[in-house]
Amino acid sequence: MGTSGNFSVVIDREPLRLAITPSATFKGELDADEILEMDERGAPVGDGYFQSSRGPTPTRAATSCRAQAAGARVSAEALLHVEIVRARGAGAVLHTHSIWSTLLSGRFGEAGGVSIEGYEMLKGLEGVRTHEHREWLPIVDNDQDMTRLSSVVRGVLDGHREAHGFLLRRHGLYTWGADLPQAVRHVEILEFLMEVSGRAMGPREQ
Amino acid sequence: MGTSGNFSVVIDREPLRLAITPSATFKGELDADEILEMDERGAPVGDGYFQSSRGPTPTRAATSCRAQAAGARVSAEALLHVEIVRARGAGAVLHTHSIWSTLLSGRFGEAGGVSIEGYEMLKGLEGVRTHEHREWLPIVDNDQDMTRLSSVVRGVLDGHREAHGFLLRRHGLYTWGADLPQAVRHVEILEFLMEVSGRAMGPREQ
Amino acid sequence: MGTSGNFSVVIDREPLRLAITPSATFKGELDADEILEMDERGAPVGDGYFQSSRGPTPTRAATSCRAQAAGARVSAEALLHVEIVRARGAGAVLHTHSIWSTLLSGRFGEAGGVSIEGYEMLKGLEGVRTHEHREWLPIVDNDQDMTRLSSVVRGVLDGHREAHGFLLRRHGLYTWGADLPQAVRHVEILEFLMEVSGRAMGPREQ
Amino acid sequence: MGTSGNFSVVIDREPLRLAITPSATFKGELDADEILEMDERGAPVGDGYFQSSRGPTPTRAATSCRAQAAGARVSAEALLHVEIVRARGAGAVLHTHSIWSTLLSGRFGEAGGVSIEGYEMLKGLEGVRTHEHREWLPIVDNDQDMTRLSSVVRGVLDGHREAHGFLLRRHGLYTWGADLPQAVRHVEILEFLMEVSGRAMGPREQ
Repeated sequence: MGTSGNFSVVIDREPLRLAITPSATFKGELDADEILEMDERGAPVGDGYFQSSRGPTPTRAATSCRAQAAGARVSAEALLHVEIVRARGAGAVLHTHSIWSTLLSGRFGEAGGVSIEGYEMLKGLEGVRTHEHREWLPIVDNDQDMTRLSSVVRGVLDGHREAHGFLLRRHGLYTWGADLPQAVRHVEILEFLMEVSGRAMGPREQ
Repeated sequence: MGTSGNFSVVIDREPLRLAITPSATFKGELDADEILEMDERGAPVGDGYFQSSRGPTPTRAATSCRAQAAGARVSAEALLHVEIVRARGAGAVLHTHSIWSTLLSGRFGEAGGVSIEGYEMLKGLEGVRTHEHREWLPIVDNDQDMTRLSSVVRGVLDGHREAHGFLLRRHGLYTWGADLPQAVRHVEILEFLMEVSGRAMGPREQ
Repeated sequence: MGTSGNFSVVIDREPLRLAITPSATFKGELDADEILEMDERGAPVGDGYFQSSRGPTPTRAATSCRAQAAGARVSAEALLHVEIVRARGAGAVLHTHSIWSTLLSGRFGEAGGVSIEGYEMLKGLEGVRTHEHREWLPIVDNDQDMTRLSSVVRGVLDGHREAHGFLLRRHGLYTWGADLPQAVRHVEILEFLMEVSGRAMGPREQ
Repeated sequence: MGTSGNFSVVIDREPLRLAITPSATFKGELDADEILEMDERGAPVGDGYFQSSRGPTPTRAATSCRAQAAGARVSAEALLHVEIVRARGAGAVLHTHSIWSTLLSGRFGEAGGVSIEGYEMLKGLEGVRTHEHREWLPIVDNDQDMTRLSSVVRGVLDGHREAHGFLLRRHGLYTWGADLPQAVRHVEILEFLMEVSGRAMGPREQ
């Protein structure tokens, strides 16, 4: 769903270690041994590859060369994953670039967020028990300065303790979960709800 | 079509027994031996699994454990399946969550239903012989109280004897058939007609 | 593309014989030996099956039973295929039910047709050499009386000698070609052009 | 993405030689040994086939016959590929016909181009480092006279040195890259951005 984006999973809490997909990879092209390992500052651990820090794998050398040649590196957005893991205790973080998250975050960017309520599908979000739930998806202005952006994201996460995700304006969705299946479920639910909301409202000149 | 939802098939009439998909399952993940068996009150029969009540299967123990660990249980919406089977004599009931059923049920919720007429594809509904048919899809307010909701659904089914399905508002579609292939055909036909109707009318601020 | 519909191919000209798909079949479910053979009045030839009139096939008996049990029969719309073959000398006729052909034929039904011009993709229609072509797709009111409808279609084909297809109102598309690949190309081209036209104009309350 | 179109890759610079897909081929049907070889005037090299000019291949004769019988020939649009390779030093050129490029090029044809700015996805275009980039996609009037059209395209490429692609009005997209993967990435990025832009603005009567 969406083009590229990146995913991370917590592999240690003390000290914090995340396995994270490299920034240069396109969907459908990711091999398990291209996954990177990073610490709480977004810096690579060891040679930067998750599998090599876990022990040798037979195809290690060749794959590493291939991945490096392709420009694999920790995404500049890794700091946002760290902020989410700290603020929410998440075990997995997913970031997607989709048509509908780009559209809704563009349309409601000025309002600072978009409200989604009254849909049965909201019950797919952790802890939600009724369609009478109102989900506020905060929208954060996009920024190429990751230190500054991660500071803004920290404030948004603190200010919206009930949110199951947030949008970067004209960029995409961040959501998370206690584990990877829960985070994947949140992506599916939120993408469905954004498409329904976007189609219900129709287009408007921006 | 759509995300999750649930399906049931009548396996006995006296006393009533339904095989039904568990509530926690996502599309594409369902194995045959995770299907549950329930009675007319929505209560599980035996250990709750359809295949074990029909006789032993080699992989039974492991699968059962996996399904239970994943939280398999009769969906709270099972009572609606029972109401439909009783009111219509249906052999199969399908419930889907799709973009277009969510949109149309939201837009026409106040009107209590949506009218679809003049389309050739209507002839795919059982007993319809001409495109000059007018299908009224009743819309029922969504409700987490399943006893109350099933009572409302009973009234709607009695009041609209010709309807081939109904919508739960901002939730999804229920349809049925004499057997599973007929019910599947009704899902395909109604989803097509809802998409055409929704696109023909265009969006409107809700 | 679209749901169900039917396809035919000319197998003899004198006397006219068409191989045609049965009316009760859904997409993706058609086996080669379920294809029917009919004459110029739409009546079945021999036992009605194309392959059996061509010679014995090992799995004949079982398949025939299966097909008959499933209600295979020449579609009531077969007469329209015959009209097209006669009026155009076509070697293959395709009829599809798609979202966009249903929408456009509904929106422009009163006007009696829809005009599509200025698109490069028009050059995929046989004999069209420039995007400056204007294609008029006639729209015929839907009718369950096939004798009456085929008479109307005959008049429309005579009155629009340049048309590469026509629409049945709120029903679907008929197109054809000298052979099956050309007819398939016409379906792809016309479906693309109808989607582009429909999206360019946007929805309108019907 | 989109229907047909054509692709080329530079195989020699001095003299200029391009491998290019034939014009009569439809998507999903292209075999490697149907790819053509042409010079800087768009004329075929040798027998016109890329693989035969590179050396014998076992299935050569049969394939050549099949391709010739199917009408394989250098596309009339090959001259546009040559213009792009010369003006940009591109190593690969991709031309696609998609719903959204057809729609946007039709809607903004009078304006001579469409502006896309503020989207994170713009960073997928070579050399773009921030979402604050403004991409101007020039739109060129469609023309069946390829000598005249290639001259216009040359002027547009010279006048818009920063553009990563251009549109032919109601026809499709041309984009390119230093190599094939970069050109493919540009197609994906530009198609995504055109769909987002088109959906954000909504339809307008043409």
